[in-house]
Amino acid sequence: MTFRARHLLGIEPLHPTEITELLDTADRYAELNRQGRAPRDVLAGLTQINMFFENSTRTQASFEIAGKRLGADVMNMAMQASSVKKGETLIDTALTLNAMRPDLLVVRHPNSGAVDLLAQKVNCAVLNAGDGRHEHPTQALLDGLTIRRAKGRLHRLSIAICGDIAHSRVARSNIMLLGKMENRIRLIAPPTLMPSGVAEFGVEVFDDMEEGLKDVDVVMMLRLQKERMDGGFTPSEREYFHRYGLDAAKLSHAKPDAIVMHPGPMNRGVEIDGTIADDINRSVIQEQVEMGVAVRMAAMDLLARNARTARDETGVMA
Amino acid sequence: MTFRARHLLGIEPLHPTEITELLDTADRYAELNRQGRAPRDVLAGLTQINMFFENSTRTQASFEIAGKRLGADVMNMAMQASSVKKGETLIDTALTLNAMRPDLLVVRHPNSGAVDLLAQKVNCAVLNAGDGRHEHPTQALLDGLTIRRAKGRLHRLSIAICGDIAHSRVARSNIMLLGKMENRIRLIAPPTLMPSGVAEFGVEVFDDMEEGLKDVDVVMMLRLQKERMDGGFTPSEREYFHRYGLDAAKLSHAKPDAIVMHPGPMNRGVEIDGTIADDINRSVIQEQVEMGVAVRMAAMDLLARNARTARDETGVMA
Amino acid sequence: MTFRARHLLGIEPLHPTEITELLDTADRYAELNRQGRAPRDVLAGLTQINMFFENSTRTQASFEIAGKRLGADVMNMAMQASSVKKGETLIDTALTLNAMRPDLLVVRHPNSGAVDLLAQKVNCAVLNAGDGRHEHPTQALLDGLTIRRAKGRLHRLSIAICGDIAHSRVARSNIMLLGKMENRIRLIAPPTLMPSGVAEFGVEVFDDMEEGLKDVDVVMMLRLQKERMDGGFTPSEREYFHRYGLDAAKLSHAKPDAIVMHPGPMNRGVEIDGTIADDINRSVIQEQVEMGVAVRMAAMDLLARNARTARDETGVMA
Repeated sequence: MTFRARHLLGIEPLHPTEITELLDTADRYAELNRQGRAPRDVLAGLTQINMFFENSTRTQASFEIAGKRLGADVMNMAMQASSVKKGETLIDTALTLNAMRPDLLVVRHPNSGAVDLLAQKVNCAVLNAGDGRHEHPTQALLDGLTIRRAKGRLHRLSIAICGDIAHSRVARSNIMLLGKMENRIRLIAPPTLMPSGVAEFGVEVFDDMEEGLKDVDVVMMLRLQKERMDGGFTPSEREYFHRYGLDAAKLSHAKPDAIVMHPGPMNRGVEIDGTIADDINRSVIQEQVEMGVAVRMAAMDLLARNARTARDETGVMA
Repeated sequence: MTFRARHLLGIEPLHPTEITELLDTADRYAELNRQGRAPRDVLAGLTQINMFFENSTRTQASFEIAGKRLGADVMNMAMQASSVKKGETLIDTALTLNAMRPDLLVVRHPNSGAVDLLAQKVNCAVLNAGDGRHEHPTQALLDGLTIRRAKGRLHRLSIAICGDIAHSRVARSNIMLLGKMENRIRLIAPPTLMPSGVAEFGVEVFDDMEEGLKDVDVVMMLRLQKERMDGGFTPSEREYFHRYGLDAAKLSHAKPDAIVMHPGPMNRGVEIDGTIADDINRSVIQEQVEMGVAVRMAAMDLLARNARTARDETGVMA
Repeated sequence: MTFRARHLLGIEPLHPTEITELLDTADRYAELNRQGRAPRDVLAGLTQINMFFENSTRTQASFEIAGKRLGADVMNMAMQASSVKKGETLIDTALTLNAMRPDLLVVRHPNSGAVDLLAQKVNCAVLNAGDGRHEHPTQALLDGLTIRRAKGRLHRLSIAICGDIAHSRVARSNIMLLGKMENRIRLIAPPTLMPSGVAEFGVEVFDDMEEGLKDVDVVMMLRLQKERMDGGFTPSEREYFHRYGLDAAKLSHAKPDAIVMHPGPMNRGVEIDGTIADDINRSVIQEQVEMGVAVRMAAMDLLARNARTARDETGVMA
């Protein structure tokens, strides 16, 4: 089963063989990027629009570099400063951009489900760059690729996801991807930051780091999503670091060759000790960013290919 | 008489044959866009700068896509965040950009006449993307092209322009373009939003929608320009919709095949009922957006050609 | 000695022959720009990221045009709206962008030394686009090129730098460049805006314009950096213009063919009389802007060449 979807809205609908195809393609792009030989004809003549309703320098930059490396015309729409202010609805904004006939629409939105809704209204391929607490599929794919390159495989690993799981679409997408690839997933969080109902995903749940990190192959830290916490209990940063921040003592409970991940941007001294983050023998945080570009190149390449195939089969221009 | 101007500052100076040439060129680009075959060599090596002193996601995006599809290097200057803040004058800003030797300068400015002034100071081709209440020529051209494609002609049509005419450069440019092409124009607005002295344009004036829409071929709604209303009478939105918003009852007075237009962004439930806006048998609002890209491609293509011709004739590099 | 550096962080480390090589290369690009024949293969396939932690429309636009003219993929990061807000450190931001494997990083930062620090952390070539009160090397180079083209040489000239020297990285970089090229430098400023310790640079110091401008070949005005004045004495603008603003009377003390420069954006009527600024027989202010693009093309061309050479010599991909 190969990846034939029109959109990349989440990890949830993907079959493991589709995930593998995406990662294999991304792996080839990672090598081409290192050699400075990305093929500029892949997306030549195509228009990519980045619609970010939430600011994100790193994710937007990653999609922009990915598109430009493959020859796309890339446009960034700062949606805060836009017609949205003038009272236009999300759907009208989407229909307007759609009428300009873009080929790829990359969307980040603060509301869960907003990107799915938008995808139903447009003719072009839509990539979810993060919607509310729902999904962030390219992040899970880049994490998967980083793990596969570091560990030589992406199955039967013991992987701990630690921190603010309740507010994290990164956690949600990763739980689905790592589960589909048949890994053992451990979630570690304070009770207030652990979502209810996670047991159905077949994960183990911990509220103690030492216990949760025991013998894992991968330690995936999350960012404290202060901006998504609406009241409720917010731990002090100092206390949080003491109990849930990754430091050498806690990390010593993981396997000796365990890798350390963080989706960024990091709050050093809150979620993670700076020394661990910078330890090139353990931390693959920079590699995650590098794989992010490769994964986005792969996703856009495959979606553009799928659009061409669909057009050829129907004989209709999108 | 073909279009030989250096700039596109307004509809006012254009001869009907120039308008037809612009629309014919745009029509060809519309087809090429649908086929994904826009020729990237038309503006290759040229620099296009979008200077927007007023925010406008849709118009700026349209010019940006148009330029990139034809191969230009496109740069967006967010003029709010610029030297303007540091006290530099509009003219100094223009002279500075001019010294960087751009080929096409797309300018939107809140002051009527600002774009004309700027065009006198620079060597490159200037396109007016809207100045105050003065002109918005590419909007009128895209409206004209949309009408011509829907109705098969752009003359001897009965066209109603409805709403906030007093504050609308869209209305002003359309009145001139549609008048030059020998259509019958009806203006419908509450007295407070009807400018004085419109009779000289040879238009009919109404303050009642049912009367004004009677038997028209085209219903062109306008956006309520709340941001340009300086005090004076502002109707409540509910009352406004009741009397001047387009709904099925009012539209029933137009011809059965009348088309419905809106320049966007729409205030649904204020200027127009959402059901009408989305009715693909009546509304050509998405087509307007699509034609916007084509019209801007045509305008920039012809202006770049005119600059080359001028250079060849004088033997001087601009 | 040719320019073999990895970065362009300041004028201070440059040898006069390196400055000459940069200016010669820029001079060729200035001619190609005038002919519309900039070679687009020079930076083709390379990624240039503009990271501006301070707003600057003109400098950012100049670097963007320079990169695009040579075929680079250019990305602008508005760093105010970025992860910096989310508490990420400058170094983490730099490491993140570095992991995306850009080739050229153009950085402006309000803190002196921030760009040097960042350059130590990344693999790509870094260009300083202004850091605090420290250096602004491309400004000094474009000023040098403008002088050389106007005067036929860049040595043994008498050059006055006038105004807010204390807060000016432009002054600092120019003092170093013009000194290295063996010119006589005169600094003219009110005592509160004259930095201490300038005597070590071998300059003459004046607080009177008429005296300081006597028989100079070049009058280089500076911008009043109100945004960098932290308390202390701020002259009223009217009084400042009276004593230190350049007008015809003061200019009459310079040589009859002296040229007038200003880095922009100008405060007309504060640092300089508008008539002088617009006098095409004296003012080379527009030429400075034009040379700015050429100098940035030259700097990026040479840095990209140096990176290729380094890679070929080590056999390692950057």
